[in-house]
Amino acid sequence: MNNCIFCKIIGGEIPSYKIYEDEKVFAFLDINPVNPGHTLVVPKEHHETMTNTPDELLSYMNIKSKELMETIKKATNADYVALSVVGLDVPHFHIHIIPRYHNDGMEHFWPTKQYKEGKAEEIAEKIKNI
Amino acid sequence: MNNCIFCKIIGGEIPSYKIYEDEKVFAFLDINPVNPGHTLVVPKEHHETMTNTPDELLSYMNIKSKELMETIKKATNADYVALSVVGLDVPHFHIHIIPRYHNDGMEHFWPTKQYKEGKAEEIAEKIKNI
Repeated sequence: MNNCIFCKIIGGEIPSYKIYEDEKVFAFLDINPVNPGHTLVVPKEHHETMTNTPDELLSYMNIKSKELMETIKKATNADYVALSVVGLDVPHFHIHIIPRYHNDGMEHFWPTKQYKEGKAEEIAEKIKNI
Repeated sequence: MNNCIFCKIIGGEIPSYKIYEDEKVFAFLDINPVNPGHTLVVPKEHHETMTNTPDELLSYMNIKSKELMETIKKATNADYVALSVVGLDVPHFHIHIIPRYHNDGMEHFWPTKQYKEGKAEEIAEKIKNI
């Protein structure tokens, strides 16, 4: 897509530190990493979000991400590797692969809450009835 | 697996707020949610991590997660829905689906850094050469 920064990176119009490329996916370093080695896995075809990405391509991206998680873990000596899809920033679907360390000073996850009496059941019913 | 809390939830031995079930996957509310509606999607077969999960099952889980993200977004009126795999807690592979709101008071993502001169290239080469 014309004005998409990730399409420009895939096309080589904007330089990137490429990690992996095949006919369907492109993986490159996030230039503002959570930790060094933080990688973005994107489909070469422009799809805005995970929801817009066809099942077959999504599956392929996840299988490749699984492989890359192992490679990145080894290369960075990470304690663990997180995978995350948020989709608030660049509107070209991307999977974050993030090397993490127990002592990297960041929260492991977001803070959690507890349901008030009856509320879990209420929300579960609401989701099931959509 | 005998002592796995998620296997016990799948088997009904431990109660849960079930969102979805078919022959391969089971989805239920995380009882300590980041936001109400926070759901865990797990394979019925016990696999410890994403890396241990066979490609076909992983693909199926991602396609189901994509569908559930849309359903959960609608049911919770979320501004966006994040998907996350961390794998530090319960050793039965699980995908988090988390409804998020622009004003939910939590960080959108983890804090990011910048690479020092030459460091991005160095780590990219290291990953590519594994």
